[in-house]
Amino acid sequence: MNKETLAIIGGGDAGMTTASWARRRKPHMNIIVFEKTNLISHAPCGLPYFIEGLFDDEKLLSAYTPEEFEKERNVNIRINHEIIELDLDNRVIYAKNRNNNDIIKLEYDYLAIATGSKPKKIKYDNESRIFYVHHPSLAREVKEKIMNLNNVAIIGGGILGVELAEALVRNGKNVLLIHKNAYLLNKMLDNDMASYINNYVSKDIKLKLNEEVLEITDGGRVIITNNGKYEVDGTIVSIGVEPNTELINDKNMIGETKAIKTDEYMRTSYKDVYAVGDVAESTNIITGMPDWQPFAPVAGKMGFTAGNHIGGVNYRFPGLIGTAITKYGEYFIAKTGLTENEAKKYGFKTISTIIRSNTRARYYPGGKEIIIKLIADENTQKLIGAQIIGQEEVLGRIDLLALAIMKSNTLYDLFYLEHAYMPAISRSWDPVILAARSLLTKF
Amino acid sequence: MNKETLAIIGGGDAGMTTASWARRRKPHMNIIVFEKTNLISHAPCGLPYFIEGLFDDEKLLSAYTPEEFEKERNVNIRINHEIIELDLDNRVIYAKNRNNNDIIKLEYDYLAIATGSKPKKIKYDNESRIFYVHHPSLAREVKEKIMNLNNVAIIGGGILGVELAEALVRNGKNVLLIHKNAYLLNKMLDNDMASYINNYVSKDIKLKLNEEVLEITDGGRVIITNNGKYEVDGTIVSIGVEPNTELINDKNMIGETKAIKTDEYMRTSYKDVYAVGDVAESTNIITGMPDWQPFAPVAGKMGFTAGNHIGGVNYRFPGLIGTAITKYGEYFIAKTGLTENEAKKYGFKTISTIIRSNTRARYYPGGKEIIIKLIADENTQKLIGAQIIGQEEVLGRIDLLALAIMKSNTLYDLFYLEHAYMPAISRSWDPVILAARSLLTKF
Ligand SMILES: Cc1cc2nc3c(=O)[nH]c(=O)nc-3n(C[C@H](O)[C@H](O)[C@H](O)COP(=O)(O)OP(=O)(O)OC[C@H]3O[C@@H](n4cnc5c(N)ncnc54)[C@H](O)[C@@H]3O)c2cc1C
Ligand SMILES: Cc1cc2nc3c(=O)[nH]c(=O)nc-3n(C[C@H](O)[C@H](O)[C@H](O)COP(=O)(O)OP(=O)(O)OC[C@H]3O[C@@H](n4cnc5c(N)ncnc54)[C@H](O)[C@@H]3O)c2cc1C
Repeated sequence: MNKETLAIIGGGDAGMTTASWARRRKPHMNIIVFEKTNLISHAPCGLPYFIEGLFDDEKLLSAYTPEEFEKERNVNIRINHEIIELDLDNRVIYAKNRNNNDIIKLEYDYLAIATGSKPKKIKYDNESRIFYVHHPSLAREVKEKIMNLNNVAIIGGGILGVELAEALVRNGKNVLLIHKNAYLLNKMLDNDMASYINNYVSKDIKLKLNEEVLEITDGGRVIITNNGKYEVDGTIVSIGVEPNTELINDKNMIGETKAIKTDEYMRTSYKDVYAVGDVAESTNIITGMPDWQPFAPVAGKMGFTAGNHIGGVNYRFPGLIGTAITKYGEYFIAKTGLTENEAKKYGFKTISTIIRSNTRARYYPGGKEIIIKLIADENTQKLIGAQIIGQEEVLGRIDLLALAIMKSNTLYDLFYLEHAYMPAISRSWDPVILAARSLLTKF
Repeated sequence: MNKETLAIIGGGDAGMTTASWARRRKPHMNIIVFEKTNLISHAPCGLPYFIEGLFDDEKLLSAYTPEEFEKERNVNIRINHEIIELDLDNRVIYAKNRNNNDIIKLEYDYLAIATGSKPKKIKYDNESRIFYVHHPSLAREVKEKIMNLNNVAIIGGGILGVELAEALVRNGKNVLLIHKNAYLLNKMLDNDMASYINNYVSKDIKLKLNEEVLEITDGGRVIITNNGKYEVDGTIVSIGVEPNTELINDKNMIGETKAIKTDEYMRTSYKDVYAVGDVAESTNIITGMPDWQPFAPVAGKMGFTAGNHIGGVNYRFPGLIGTAITKYGEYFIAKTGLTENEAKKYGFKTISTIIRSNTRARYYPGGKEIIIKLIADENTQKLIGAQIIGQEEVLGRIDLLALAIMKSNTLYDLFYLEHAYMPAISRSWDPVILAARSLLTKF
């Protein structure tokens, strides 16, 4: 009997996790990962901090070298191999070896598409001073180029834009941030929460809100918006990412979110073909609608799901709610579920509250501010969204709220959570509990 | 029509929360709180830090003065009034005014017993140098006496003993901690987790484990154990607390845990008589057995439940699981649900794992160690217990695990939680998620 072959396209989080779990479940399967760059198991999430200069060894951006992974997991890794064509009907893919341009044809039994996302672009003349911060393989090059500039424009005030603004400010750069929405981080926060951040960020950088960039000229040195024209030394574009579906010819595979449609085991519409990570669409648990969340924890769990399923072990991927965290200066900023804005668009009748509190007992030194917004569905009293801005203990609280949303918990459930209290790190009435109480007692 | 009267015995967390919510629901009710000391709305939880010297204004130990509370909530507060007798059959209580020894008789329509807990004692000759750290009204006095000592014995290595050990060590005292169990914090941790703490604490203090104190003589200067005799300048006894049920004559009111039995609205077996806070027993959600958890968040939520119910609004108190957090030095130590030890005693077939991780991405500076133990029921795959030792982001994680336990979530539910990730404060595979995965994939 021939060995089964699993081919994986893309050596990021999603692809490598798929490989690991398929290997664990099927010790004898033939597993090949094709990665077009020279890096696997890489962490794009580290790029803003590498640029900031918080660490300088770019090897740390990869959890494994190809050699280590091959050895430890017995998986065949082909770096510098780009998949250039899929023939899903005949279960064949074609790879180009970027070292010598050889074309390799491979028949697969299982295929996992894990090609990630790619940055959206803006109209430009030439790209000599336009930068994208996206793939770790370009970390050093991008960093050096950006660090040569003094006046830098960042287009887009989402997570990446805000993280890069901080990285540049800490390096003494003059930052101009142009954002088309009325407030920063508008996919994470509602206006009421974002206003805290707008004020805070404006202290360090020049912030242009409500402004849309029409064109970048002079190779990145001139930015033309619907409201003016700015001259800088170079421009970083961080207006978001989109699923990297270049290889997909069959448009039926693509969903509303522009990512590849998947079922609860990450299967696409083609038998034995999976899609995982930033290239994959799933279903939002709150709305029941297609959703796409290009974040590392999602990529990992999708890979886990697909790898296990290929290996004969079935864990259902439960769908998405949209959890994210970022920071600016001393503040962590996190959200889970729907913003109130989004919830209303989906037809929910929302009820919401914002609680400002200290993170510690009033008498305990070093307490920090924390602001929590909770959003519930007025009809069911279920939690459907949460936003937190704070200096400590933001992560665990947002995860707790994410769990509550995923499991359809109500305000009652959340309020009566038997939470932990000690003066040195919390409040007897924890701000999460206070916020839940404030909504619960409105009914 | 006469106004209804609600009498509340005890002006701690539980009593004052009951008063607040009854008032909110029934603006015209007559509400009287009897408190035998001169403080209400006080925070015993702050005592270790007051003693340590982290703040010096003992007024901060009370959230409200009696006058403030009376004014803000329109509740009649009688400080220095001790309830000395209950006549529940006739709906009457008797209070002694401690200023002039007058006895007051009061008829009530509703009664809430919120007398808290009291420290357990050890056999002694005289108490001149034996100290209990329990009520904020004695904060200054106890602190001054303890600070006069150089060599201090602490009996009992539970939460309070460990917190006080730190407070004294930071003040240059020589601390001898005698604990009858084989490891510290044995109600919170299993041996495998506690061993980290034992080692850490032993660097600062003299630790005697597995030793039972038989008697304290010389007014607190000589301690006789089953294994030796120790001479010190004075002794703090922190061997635990018990429900303060001195007023209860009808033994049928008392449950297995020695606290007052309550139903889901905090009602006792007497009509219109409620028990809340450290004096009240409830039901453990995991075991279905009577349980008692003398912690501030529980006291608050019991008070909320009773106050609302008296006010005609019904929220069911869901029962207990046992959540707690403490710290020593740089480490927070937290637990929720059953320890593995306890779970086995209750007949669970347990499966458990311990994960050691860093709190941040490997390349992000300042990461701290975190150790997580998860315990699940092998039959149902439900999470039934968790323990965490770590330097940051312990609180939110333990609360998240508490919610999972309260809502009967399985390892699958926990693993697939869409958690937040950013390198500066977490891991792409969060240690909680890793721990859940490690157990989930054993099945
Ligand atoms: C700068 C930045 C910061 C981020 N910060 C965070 C964060 O803090 N937290 C968080 O949760 N998420 C963050 N993310 C998102 C996170 O990195 C992604 O969700 C995650 O990397 C997705 O993993 P993936 O495997 O699906 O895709 P990727 O990691 O993008 O990997 C896809 C791989 O496929 C390869 N590939 C593509 N096409 C082909 C082809 N045709 N042939 C061969 N190989 C191919 C690519 O070279 C790439 O290596 C960040 C992303 C960026 C860019
Ligand atoms: C030193 C210490 C540290 C603690 N640290 C923490 C912590 O970090 N986290 C946490 O969650 N919990 C902690 N706790 C526990 C927490 O303080 C209690 O759970 C909480 O105070 C219980 O509230 P309560 O209202 O039921 O009782 P109490 O706060 O004890 O209040 C009861 C009140 O009733 C009064 N009273 C008693 N009998 C009578 C009577 N006959 N007539 C009139 N009045 C009477 C008492 O004087 C007292 O003021 C700590 C406790 C102590 C002692």
